[in-house]
Amino acid sequence: MTRVGIVGIGHGVFGRRSDATVQELAFEAFKTAMDDAGIERDALDASVIGSVPEYHKQRSLPGVVQEYLGLNPKPTWLTEVACASGSAALRTAWMSIKAGVHEVVAVIGCQKMTELSTPEILALMGRVGEVQWESGFGTTFPAYYALFAQRHMHEYGTTREQLFEVAIKNHYYGARNPNALFQKEITLEKAAASEEVAAPLQVYDCCANADGAACVIVASEERAKEISDNIVWLDGMACATASMSVLRRPHLTGLPSAEKAGADAYAMAGVGPDDIKVADVHDCFTIAEIMAYEDLGFCGKGEGGRFVADHQTYIEGKVAVNVDGGLKAKGHPIGATGISMTYEIARQLRGEAGERQVPDADVGLTHNVGGIGQYCFVQVMKRD
Amino acid sequence: MTRVGIVGIGHGVFGRRSDATVQELAFEAFKTAMDDAGIERDALDASVIGSVPEYHKQRSLPGVVQEYLGLNPKPTWLTEVACASGSAALRTAWMSIKAGVHEVVAVIGCQKMTELSTPEILALMGRVGEVQWESGFGTTFPAYYALFAQRHMHEYGTTREQLFEVAIKNHYYGARNPNALFQKEITLEKAAASEEVAAPLQVYDCCANADGAACVIVASEERAKEISDNIVWLDGMACATASMSVLRRPHLTGLPSAEKAGADAYAMAGVGPDDIKVADVHDCFTIAEIMAYEDLGFCGKGEGGRFVADHQTYIEGKVAVNVDGGLKAKGHPIGATGISMTYEIARQLRGEAGERQVPDADVGLTHNVGGIGQYCFVQVMKRD
Repeated sequence: MTRVGIVGIGHGVFGRRSDATVQELAFEAFKTAMDDAGIERDALDASVIGSVPEYHKQRSLPGVVQEYLGLNPKPTWLTEVACASGSAALRTAWMSIKAGVHEVVAVIGCQKMTELSTPEILALMGRVGEVQWESGFGTTFPAYYALFAQRHMHEYGTTREQLFEVAIKNHYYGARNPNALFQKEITLEKAAASEEVAAPLQVYDCCANADGAACVIVASEERAKEISDNIVWLDGMACATASMSVLRRPHLTGLPSAEKAGADAYAMAGVGPDDIKVADVHDCFTIAEIMAYEDLGFCGKGEGGRFVADHQTYIEGKVAVNVDGGLKAKGHPIGATGISMTYEIARQLRGEAGERQVPDADVGLTHNVGGIGQYCFVQVMKRD
Repeated sequence: MTRVGIVGIGHGVFGRRSDATVQELAFEAFKTAMDDAGIERDALDASVIGSVPEYHKQRSLPGVVQEYLGLNPKPTWLTEVACASGSAALRTAWMSIKAGVHEVVAVIGCQKMTELSTPEILALMGRVGEVQWESGFGTTFPAYYALFAQRHMHEYGTTREQLFEVAIKNHYYGARNPNALFQKEITLEKAAASEEVAAPLQVYDCCANADGAACVIVASEERAKEISDNIVWLDGMACATASMSVLRRPHLTGLPSAEKAGADAYAMAGVGPDDIKVADVHDCFTIAEIMAYEDLGFCGKGEGGRFVADHQTYIEGKVAVNVDGGLKAKGHPIGATGISMTYEIARQLRGEAGERQVPDADVGLTHNVGGIGQYCFVQVMKRD
């Protein structure tokens, strides 16, 4: 089977993008990625859209995006697995190339989160939990992650301050990312003074909704080598699931889907956690990043809080994590997030991350969670 | 690349299924397909869901379906391209097998259309048209297809009665399909007396929303031969797109996406229209079936009306079309429809369609349209 390589990357500014429709956001990222690849539309065989449809007034997004991008009559499809929709889109594109069905595919993660009113958005988000037995009783996203945090603190002595260390790091790097929603540093004092959302989580433990889009162009080994001399390879592409009901999970201190997807992606790429120099992980809440360290084997079980407090996930540490600001500072346009992660790790492996560049970054990883971990997609990426 | 074969099929009853949640509908079809294949869950590598998310109160359906079906921690993903979501799901599953990523995959089309109120459903459906420039001016689905019908009648002399001939045929066969929503025949007089919806279309030109699910189990050539001795092969799997705005279409008497997907699927499978013995086509409105005959080459351009009036698409005719009742009589649970079509053609090629069996059915086809033809998926299927 052919390897699949990334030959073009594009990323728009995340934020309240009242200046653009969702198809315009898609175009912004697509155009940048196509220019980066140095190819024209006729070189593409298909497009795949990662997005969660119900946040847009326009139904069935791929049709309107495909038309706006000038890609008719090429095939298109949309994938949805909540906040991991972008990674699912990329995985189906990767499969289409490995299958020999397509050779060059544009994968676009795009999302507007600000078309609907806040109550409408909250209602939609609440319903990503299991509606029959759980979310009806108040388990919104912050509440679910608050359960994880409480249990992690109880079992491993993780502290309130260690959670904020994730936010402080991610804002530090977000301040250096011109595409980020929040481009300013925060202090422990400021975080600690923020309002409580669901104990122990406070405002500065939570990522923010945003509008945004990102795009990567992927190609078969043969076509990739024709198009680019700075290819990033998608060598480990795994997806795993866990029960939607947290009631049925074996524990609440990590995500079983992330443990499984991580192990599968490492095996597929022939690497281990110690090989990863840079990673983008799904820090929808600060506790989620701490659990990700552990689920992916960056540190031992229960050690995640100390790991970040010791600055082991800064650029100078053992493994650089979310040095683009993460969901916390970049913002979280849910369908775009997975492709935004892929964009960042590709930039790092290409050595183009500027002041945020991780030295000697040759192997990287993305970890994109859907919902409360009912899905997790892990990608291991390598440079030539 | 490996061929991909269908080794199990399942189909629930379409209708107002207030007796079942969407995951229960999915299970009903899945269980039947697994029993048909004679395999257990551990033989599966993944599941793919075809569904349009916004009609369900539960958000992010794959998680809750995966859990209800007992398939954690296997991978899953959902595809959405409006009414062609089921076929898109199957196409990604087919690619995953051709890629060697998975060997055996369950593909489930499932949809509840009756959880929301009628005004909510109408609002959602209206927004499948292009919201910025078209649907805001009243071009709902019936209105779009009324435009197609008007133009077809104007250019080719297609008659009001010929449109009803599609409905009469599909109700005739629906009356013989225990899974159909409408299991009774209709007469021309009854159809002609029905209310106008959007001139020239009347109530009996329109398919009806329904709840329902269907499932197929697909496998690599090697695994398929181990599992089944009555395999149906997916040899031509094409997808094409056309502009969402009908304003930008080259003509209004057919769907450019269907013409392209049909030609691509025939080429991939090495067959032509004359080889097709049985087909399920997307008769969301009677005019849609007439256009499908022409777009797929079953008859010449403009001849579709006479073709059905001459009974050329009955079992005894040139090519049997929608002899399961089609969307018109079966009902249209949008995400399930593509898999329902695949189920029916597989049954026909396996020789198991009972009183509706098409003699010597060795090559069949499905034609599944999304929206107003912004997507079309065509599959050519063969028996061994």
